[in-house]
Amino acid sequence: MSTNYEIPETRVLAIASHVVYGYVGNTMATFVLQSLGCEVSAINTVHYSNHTAYKQVKGRKTTAEEISELYEGLKQSNLTDFDVLLTGYTPSAEAVEAVGRIGRDLKFHANTKPGSFFWVLDPVMGDEGRLYIPEEEVPVYKTHLRNADLILPNQFEAELLSDTKIRNLDTLAEAIQILHRTHQIPHIVITSLRFTESGTTVPYSADYDSGTLTIVGSTARADHTPRLFRIDIPAFPVFFSGTGDMFAALTVARLRGAVFEAGVNKAQRWVSPDDVPSTELPLAKAAEEVLASMQAVLRKTYAAWDKERKLLDEEMGDVRAGQQSGKEGMSQEKMRRHLRLTKAAEVKLVRNVDDLRHPPDSEKYKAQEVIVHVGQSVGQPQPDELGITNLGGEGSQSAIHIDNTNQRN
Amino acid sequence: MSTNYEIPETRVLAIASHVVYGYVGNTMATFVLQSLGCEVSAINTVHYSNHTAYKQVKGRKTTAEEISELYEGLKQSNLTDFDVLLTGYTPSAEAVEAVGRIGRDLKFHANTKPGSFFWVLDPVMGDEGRLYIPEEEVPVYKTHLRNADLILPNQFEAELLSDTKIRNLDTLAEAIQILHRTHQIPHIVITSLRFTESGTTVPYSADYDSGTLTIVGSTARADHTPRLFRIDIPAFPVFFSGTGDMFAALTVARLRGAVFEAGVNKAQRWVSPDDVPSTELPLAKAAEEVLASMQAVLRKTYAAWDKERKLLDEEMGDVRAGQQSGKEGMSQEKMRRHLRLTKAAEVKLVRNVDDLRHPPDSEKYKAQEVIVHVGQSVGQPQPDELGITNLGGEGSQSAIHIDNTNQRN
Repeated sequence: MSTNYEIPETRVLAIASHVVYGYVGNTMATFVLQSLGCEVSAINTVHYSNHTAYKQVKGRKTTAEEISELYEGLKQSNLTDFDVLLTGYTPSAEAVEAVGRIGRDLKFHANTKPGSFFWVLDPVMGDEGRLYIPEEEVPVYKTHLRNADLILPNQFEAELLSDTKIRNLDTLAEAIQILHRTHQIPHIVITSLRFTESGTTVPYSADYDSGTLTIVGSTARADHTPRLFRIDIPAFPVFFSGTGDMFAALTVARLRGAVFEAGVNKAQRWVSPDDVPSTELPLAKAAEEVLASMQAVLRKTYAAWDKERKLLDEEMGDVRAGQQSGKEGMSQEKMRRHLRLTKAAEVKLVRNVDDLRHPPDSEKYKAQEVIVHVGQSVGQPQPDELGITNLGGEGSQSAIHIDNTNQRN
Repeated sequence: MSTNYEIPETRVLAIASHVVYGYVGNTMATFVLQSLGCEVSAINTVHYSNHTAYKQVKGRKTTAEEISELYEGLKQSNLTDFDVLLTGYTPSAEAVEAVGRIGRDLKFHANTKPGSFFWVLDPVMGDEGRLYIPEEEVPVYKTHLRNADLILPNQFEAELLSDTKIRNLDTLAEAIQILHRTHQIPHIVITSLRFTESGTTVPYSADYDSGTLTIVGSTARADHTPRLFRIDIPAFPVFFSGTGDMFAALTVARLRGAVFEAGVNKAQRWVSPDDVPSTELPLAKAAEEVLASMQAVLRKTYAAWDKERKLLDEEMGDVRAGQQSGKEGMSQEKMRRHLRLTKAAEVKLVRNVDDLRHPPDSEKYKAQEVIVHVGQSVGQPQPDELGITNLGGEGSQSAIHIDNTNQRN
């Protein structure tokens, strides 16, 4: 069964990349949001021919000045009455600063009306232990965090922002606690975690396989302690670009729907009262629908990709492009195969709108509570005084206890 | 009743403007095409905060080099297997040249497979007697015409491209004949014509009113004579930006559907056999559906605009912004009113997808045949030899005869 309430009218300012071919960044987010009935104003942070998984790209980055100027253009014509700001990949520290100013300005002007503005920040910085932005951007992102209402880091980004190495659910909860408390972020979803059977995170160097992906989310209580939920989903053995952006865009729409449904749309930063359990949070309800839509679309994408792979095997023999090799290390034939497979892995979006609008089988992706007892030493506003700069270390683990008995089996 | 066959899978390269707020150019075309299931790759020719009807804009133009570079990026990764090229507003002569090279290149590579590539060129140059591009762009546009398969000029643009002043249906047919014959364009739709009761065109200086708009289309016969049809639609007493782009995008999708339906998708340039009458042309069928969708969406847009206008009258009294005055001539209050009304006139797109996908009341917008007897002196490939450089003048009118008895009353 799908909730599928109507999404309330929503005006989104989306700041992320534009590619001519394929679906990442704003190219993904715009259509996904529009399909769910949201108005989208897109400021594009790069103008590229295609995304980087092709291993070759042409185009240019938008400068910080250009981003600011476009926003000034909106302001001078009174076109900034946005309900939501969604920010993603931003290619320079200066541009991240410009985006931060936009977020602060929108927030400032919505100040008198609690809940009337909400910033979803996808801190696109890297993945699998590897940064793909200049290193000096990381501290700039950190300064924006307290203005963001929901952040959507992957595991690596959550580690960077919380200065906490995520080794297992314990350290994950710790990282989230720090983000809630030290950085004052009310809502967090950590996307695409991978755990071994013993509950530790899979090393970044491990190969993709068709195991299980876990997302963990939380909305803070009034005392900044987390309300943690998790959803496990089957992983596909292929890398699809833009899935993070798809997750973010769907989450904007579904969270807004769920927040209105729960009647907390006028609450400060859309935070539910303390007595709402984690699995009943609008964030959890939204995530269930988001993942149901994504699984349906990605299943179809995978089928199309697999068909193309088989066709290629017939045509070219088994000329496989090494997963790790750069463009330089490839023969022309391997590169051709790589390009075709990357193209085939573009998310099959426009013909699967129904899956976006009516998430199928969403009962399969139910949020499970993760009960946590959190000590007060984790994530205090003044980390240095409290000696939690080494939060990733063993010393702080005693402050947090995870009870996983409620988990999905 | 609506035909509403499924649109076949379609990959469109769309080259037009991008605005952060509102719906014109690619911002309009992308969503419209995607809603109808088409894949869209968008090269943006400008990056503006909003469209020009607001009377103030910030942002930048894309250079010709940037446009070419993005296309080169697609080529190097084998991402140029487009079925349709849709080109719109392009802000400089150099950029129009760059777009022309892209069109030629795509056409060249599709050469061996008739019907596998189709260029819809919206020659966005001006309206109502006024150019809004640099004058030197006009001849550049003319050089592209012979590579275009369908052009969508408004009356003023058709006059510019055919060097023919359109005074009535006679001279209109003449202009179309020239475009078919001299410029080798198989399909033409002239959008938004206004005729007086006596059949002459309404002068450009006349005020907007809620009269009737006419579109006239034609697909050439083998001998380059036109097969003319017309569709009359009620006009709204407001200027909506982006309707030309909406028309173009819907036409791409609907024409492709109609062409497959008629089985001429593998015919050279999608031209129907000579025995197909004008009202049975795929172009006519497409236009009926396009206009049905547009009327439905614009009716809702008008209602929203009108509501805002009444609200403004209550709030501000009757402080009307003069239709013709620039930003400078306005009081702050008038400017504020102008901005709000312009915003309210943004086409209400995302919540009316059903009107795009299932054109309502399309039986109301039936194409009517316009029977024409065309002489051989109009629109020959060598205009100078044939002495038709003054085609707009009286001398050539005898070559063409319009029989309007079949027209809708």
